[in-house]
Amino acid sequence: MQAPAKQRIRMGMVGGGEGAFIGAVHRHAAALDGQIELVCGAFSRDGENNQRTGRDLCIEPNRLYSSWQELLQKEAALPDNERMQLLVIVTPNQLHVPISRAAIASGFHVFCEKPAGVTLAETQQLAVDLNASNSLYGLAHTYLGYPMVWQAKELVQSGTLGTIRKIFVEYPQGWLTEDLESSQNKQASWRTDPAQAGASGCMADIGTHAFGMAEFISGQQITQLCAELKSHVPGRRLDDDGAALFRTNGGASGVLMASQICAGEENALKIRIYGDKAGLEWHQMEPNTLLVKPHGAPVQVLRAGAGQPGLGAEASRRCRLPAGHPEGYLEAMGNLYRDFAAAIRKGEKGTPTGVPGIKAGMRGMAFIETVSSSQHSNEKWLAVPAVE
Amino acid sequence: MQAPAKQRIRMGMVGGGEGAFIGAVHRHAAALDGQIELVCGAFSRDGENNQRTGRDLCIEPNRLYSSWQELLQKEAALPDNERMQLLVIVTPNQLHVPISRAAIASGFHVFCEKPAGVTLAETQQLAVDLNASNSLYGLAHTYLGYPMVWQAKELVQSGTLGTIRKIFVEYPQGWLTEDLESSQNKQASWRTDPAQAGASGCMADIGTHAFGMAEFISGQQITQLCAELKSHVPGRRLDDDGAALFRTNGGASGVLMASQICAGEENALKIRIYGDKAGLEWHQMEPNTLLVKPHGAPVQVLRAGAGQPGLGAEASRRCRLPAGHPEGYLEAMGNLYRDFAAAIRKGEKGTPTGVPGIKAGMRGMAFIETVSSSQHSNEKWLAVPAVE
Amino acid sequence: MQAPAKQRIRMGMVGGGEGAFIGAVHRHAAALDGQIELVCGAFSRDGENNQRTGRDLCIEPNRLYSSWQELLQKEAALPDNERMQLLVIVTPNQLHVPISRAAIASGFHVFCEKPAGVTLAETQQLAVDLNASNSLYGLAHTYLGYPMVWQAKELVQSGTLGTIRKIFVEYPQGWLTEDLESSQNKQASWRTDPAQAGASGCMADIGTHAFGMAEFISGQQITQLCAELKSHVPGRRLDDDGAALFRTNGGASGVLMASQICAGEENALKIRIYGDKAGLEWHQMEPNTLLVKPHGAPVQVLRAGAGQPGLGAEASRRCRLPAGHPEGYLEAMGNLYRDFAAAIRKGEKGTPTGVPGIKAGMRGMAFIETVSSSQHSNEKWLAVPAVE
Amino acid sequence: MQAPAKQRIRMGMVGGGEGAFIGAVHRHAAALDGQIELVCGAFSRDGENNQRTGRDLCIEPNRLYSSWQELLQKEAALPDNERMQLLVIVTPNQLHVPISRAAIASGFHVFCEKPAGVTLAETQQLAVDLNASNSLYGLAHTYLGYPMVWQAKELVQSGTLGTIRKIFVEYPQGWLTEDLESSQNKQASWRTDPAQAGASGCMADIGTHAFGMAEFISGQQITQLCAELKSHVPGRRLDDDGAALFRTNGGASGVLMASQICAGEENALKIRIYGDKAGLEWHQMEPNTLLVKPHGAPVQVLRAGAGQPGLGAEASRRCRLPAGHPEGYLEAMGNLYRDFAAAIRKGEKGTPTGVPGIKAGMRGMAFIETVSSSQHSNEKWLAVPAVE
Repeated sequence: MQAPAKQRIRMGMVGGGEGAFIGAVHRHAAALDGQIELVCGAFSRDGENNQRTGRDLCIEPNRLYSSWQELLQKEAALPDNERMQLLVIVTPNQLHVPISRAAIASGFHVFCEKPAGVTLAETQQLAVDLNASNSLYGLAHTYLGYPMVWQAKELVQSGTLGTIRKIFVEYPQGWLTEDLESSQNKQASWRTDPAQAGASGCMADIGTHAFGMAEFISGQQITQLCAELKSHVPGRRLDDDGAALFRTNGGASGVLMASQICAGEENALKIRIYGDKAGLEWHQMEPNTLLVKPHGAPVQVLRAGAGQPGLGAEASRRCRLPAGHPEGYLEAMGNLYRDFAAAIRKGEKGTPTGVPGIKAGMRGMAFIETVSSSQHSNEKWLAVPAVE
Repeated sequence: MQAPAKQRIRMGMVGGGEGAFIGAVHRHAAALDGQIELVCGAFSRDGENNQRTGRDLCIEPNRLYSSWQELLQKEAALPDNERMQLLVIVTPNQLHVPISRAAIASGFHVFCEKPAGVTLAETQQLAVDLNASNSLYGLAHTYLGYPMVWQAKELVQSGTLGTIRKIFVEYPQGWLTEDLESSQNKQASWRTDPAQAGASGCMADIGTHAFGMAEFISGQQITQLCAELKSHVPGRRLDDDGAALFRTNGGASGVLMASQICAGEENALKIRIYGDKAGLEWHQMEPNTLLVKPHGAPVQVLRAGAGQPGLGAEASRRCRLPAGHPEGYLEAMGNLYRDFAAAIRKGEKGTPTGVPGIKAGMRGMAFIETVSSSQHSNEKWLAVPAVE
Repeated sequence: MQAPAKQRIRMGMVGGGEGAFIGAVHRHAAALDGQIELVCGAFSRDGENNQRTGRDLCIEPNRLYSSWQELLQKEAALPDNERMQLLVIVTPNQLHVPISRAAIASGFHVFCEKPAGVTLAETQQLAVDLNASNSLYGLAHTYLGYPMVWQAKELVQSGTLGTIRKIFVEYPQGWLTEDLESSQNKQASWRTDPAQAGASGCMADIGTHAFGMAEFISGQQITQLCAELKSHVPGRRLDDDGAALFRTNGGASGVLMASQICAGEENALKIRIYGDKAGLEWHQMEPNTLLVKPHGAPVQVLRAGAGQPGLGAEASRRCRLPAGHPEGYLEAMGNLYRDFAAAIRKGEKGTPTGVPGIKAGMRGMAFIETVSSSQHSNEKWLAVPAVE
Repeated sequence: MQAPAKQRIRMGMVGGGEGAFIGAVHRHAAALDGQIELVCGAFSRDGENNQRTGRDLCIEPNRLYSSWQELLQKEAALPDNERMQLLVIVTPNQLHVPISRAAIASGFHVFCEKPAGVTLAETQQLAVDLNASNSLYGLAHTYLGYPMVWQAKELVQSGTLGTIRKIFVEYPQGWLTEDLESSQNKQASWRTDPAQAGASGCMADIGTHAFGMAEFISGQQITQLCAELKSHVPGRRLDDDGAALFRTNGGASGVLMASQICAGEENALKIRIYGDKAGLEWHQMEPNTLLVKPHGAPVQVLRAGAGQPGLGAEASRRCRLPAGHPEGYLEAMGNLYRDFAAAIRKGEKGTPTGVPGIKAGMRGMAFIETVSSSQHSNEKWLAVPAVE
């Protein structure tokens, strides 16, 4: 009997039991292209939750583990053609680095929710480990999986915008308008708890997305910033809102805004970049549209779609459907998983092609630490540390 | 060793080889929720295409078949716990009914691309077979998988709109603006060939979606219509454009428009329904938004999203992500697959709960035949035949 | 003392007293550019209303008249440099032709609300009178004063769209969702009274706008149509809703929809035209934007604005403000008045350059009569009579 | 003969000759409601321009003046029932205060373009003069004439938003993307010349609009800010871009952005305010729509329109047309003129009811000076001086 040409990539997951949001998102996204199979997990420290989740996901009982330590140990002991290849980490932030480092030490690839960790220092240690390994490490900056984000980047690179002058990136949400953490909302609780989330709430949770997208599309680094963070809801222990003026190494200036107390807003990440020839605008909630705004000529509405004329190669290959058949958030994350699977098949090391990696992780941590420092500083401008 | 609680539903596919569009769409949608596994296929009559497609999809070589007949015969001979359960049919229209009937005769469930067939008569025969079987039959009216389409239906049912007076449903596309069929575009070729597509081009391909959505949301049946169909592109053998005035059994009047020569349009299915208390509006290209327009009060913007306040149960359970994380076309079709899988597990017969079935298929065929007759008739109003 | 180079054009008005809507609209629009001065009027048959309106408008008491007959007679007797030059008619429809003819017979110019009359025959008599006179006659097809409507026309004329294939024009309103005429709403009462409005309600009131715009932008004539009109509100004596399939003398097909029972809609006139090279789309409620949709290239967003690059001369000269400073309905009508004033200064005859005139009026009447006949006919297609 | 009940208010103008933009805008807006008549002017220091402008505007030759000084002197000498009542000042900024003070000293009312002056100190002197006079003084914060801006203010006042937490106000334009001032663009030249524009370019020109709107709608005062201004175009002498973090006396935080180098943007003033119960959003370029975003309930689309249900009294009375008939920028400014005319008729003093006045002018100057200081300061937060 002839063997099939390809085996699906075998994936495990830490976290993502019932009641968690992001675990299921990762599972949908990983399954979307039929290239990855979920084979094992330690979904919850609550044994019953873990059992129910595993059964519902059709996990073989012997590959449902009670802890991430057990998962790493037992999977490492399996034969090559059964063993998990890729570990997905969807726990609260404080476990991101410890699990990532242990998984890499055991020879696994890692795909981790953002932020990469809770301090820049621990994230830099992870980077050192990674560089010394044969593993791949990806970070779930999901929004960087959208086709039109890549198209935006290409417009900058190709010079369509000219010299970049101005960057506005904003991320208003409304879900923390009320004190959800006191009413046992699991999502709200850990995100507002310094012990689990780290030094920042809103900035770590969504400000990093805004920051990462600004750097990704512009191709520039944010070198200085001046921020104000705030907890608008009485008793909340971490910031639920903030804004920063910033400057880049390319001479642009900008404004970053992230907030979780903007009543009535859903998940309205939006970026606008202006050069001396044209501007661009992209909204996460209408992700298949990219506006190009040439100076002195009509706005053009670029649209995602497989085979869509005028799209660059990077945007095109991230579209599964013809224009007018909307793709969304799961497809964006699916693009990261598809690229991660391809990188595993090709034997890449370090950062998988097409996927945000450890450097994006360190940049995000540098941002979180600087923006938090700025809040408590009378100095107007603080430098964002460079990372290697 | 304890068995997992659930096995994935085993799916096969006829059609959908390289170069076909809709096969891949079905595979993504079926995979999305981790409840269905593709185990076999006859993807193309071109043997090499079939081989490449099967390998790329990680199909075991012994379950890659050279014809749908072979597929049905060999799968039927497999043991219960290996045998395909659900057959997906993504061939040109003229094979829909023959394969569906054969599959049902072999005891399989069927999920078929629309339209259900090429004549109403053959579709009615299929219905007879189905009723006599234990099989489930679903039809890929994908747009009826969107959460906000269900929410629209609920608004009608709950009386928010009052008595329905007016229905506008439109479906402009632009991709057949040029004579693609002469330049060997596979999609265009069969859709404009009466031998493969049936009596109508545009009306069968997309007019049926518009018709089906109008009946689905309004809960009324279109009983009379007056249509003009047209082939705008010289040499084209089937209609590429058309419009119909119509009347419903609930006393409403309406307009249906479907066209594939609307230059610059993508896939702009849109429906508006007005009652004596309120109107509603939904666009497929912005599927997560539903406008409700009360008479004498501000428009309300209803939004899809898991746990979104104000959404009915049917809309809510079709959302995977919180509001502001866009879901799209694949998720809509995924909802049909998820419901189909659940119906199989529950042992349902006939039409799977939540999935358009044979009745929708017959209604669509009745529409296609009436609209085609109207084109050649001097009578103003033709009756759309009732189906049972 | 040196005389000023220009005197303002002296305008009178029939109709438009307190409680009427459109009279005030005309006064704002006429005043906007400082080229026209309101000097006399017969605003209401109700003497007190007439007095109050006159005083509020700063009309000299001796030029406030109790009837349109008195107005024409007394103004005609005034010296050349005092006498009214332009009469604005904003009465119910059945008076449009009688007053227009009398005014022309007295040597005045006429600007009349649409429709031009209540029958095609009487409108043709008016045309005969006009041709034999030195007067100018304009019809308030206000929407044809919008800059981007002229830009749309230019796109068609310049060949940007290629050969026109398809025209969709729709005009949904919601204000007659309820039976306002029974509750003494003045606007609703006369519009639903055959004695004052003529043979049609909705089609005469707004269907004519849709029809006129389709012919104006496309440059084609609608030669055949097939319509259904309806009175959805019990007891209403004229149509409040309707739709027509149509064909043009240029080989295009189309759909026209006009309704006043679309709950929650405001004044949503919208036109889309598709050729074999590109499509266009314009909405009255966002009048400063015109979408151009080339086949196979991104949509372009053309925007109104003085000095806006890429706008044609006809659109440009109808903009008073730079892009981004919205102009609206009053400015559109103001454009008709500005052009009418210029035509008077230049001594033009018949139809003022830039203003819809008697031919548009006759076309509108031909449409109203054909669409009304179609409602009562079993013939599928009726010819729209040509007018000279 | 009976006298008319009302005379039109007699208006004069300084500035606004050919080639100037804003003068014509004021003339359209003042004419719109038929309550004001332009009777005199000193439109340009260029004698020929002045003559041409006067003739085109139908000004009597003896009331066309060569300088603002001559205008004030000669008009003051005219009889009561002929003399100008209201002077409109549309000169470059450095003349605003000198002319305003002279006009008030001569007993005239003043409507002045913004900013009120070039320093806070001179504006405070003007305030002293005004308080000692019987004159009215209005400032052309045109955007505060829009109905939906008043509706937004009412939503805040009525508690619909709850406690205000966050204010975002942005004003991106693109017209100074290029170095227009070197190519003799009149508008660009004086706005980028410190001698004519004052200490700031972009912030004085449009930042003040953003600032004024934030304070107007929120009803709070901005007490501290931290800004970065920039001249992106080489050689430009004043800021063409800037942003500020700010704090209010009501405990809210916010971000203000104003820029004239956002390539492809027109005049995109937009404000969003979030409270603990709801948010609101308004765009100047779609001025008839106001979004209300309750926490935990669907967004509501409030729409301008005469007689529109749900609108407050202040918004309603600023609408001339039914919903769906767009009103724009000229109507917004027309609202200021209509209220100014009414205030004159009523004999009001100081600030006309419904019109921004000297206090708004001083606040604007305080903002300009603080934001300019912040640019050159290392202190993070600077206080915005309070004004009386």
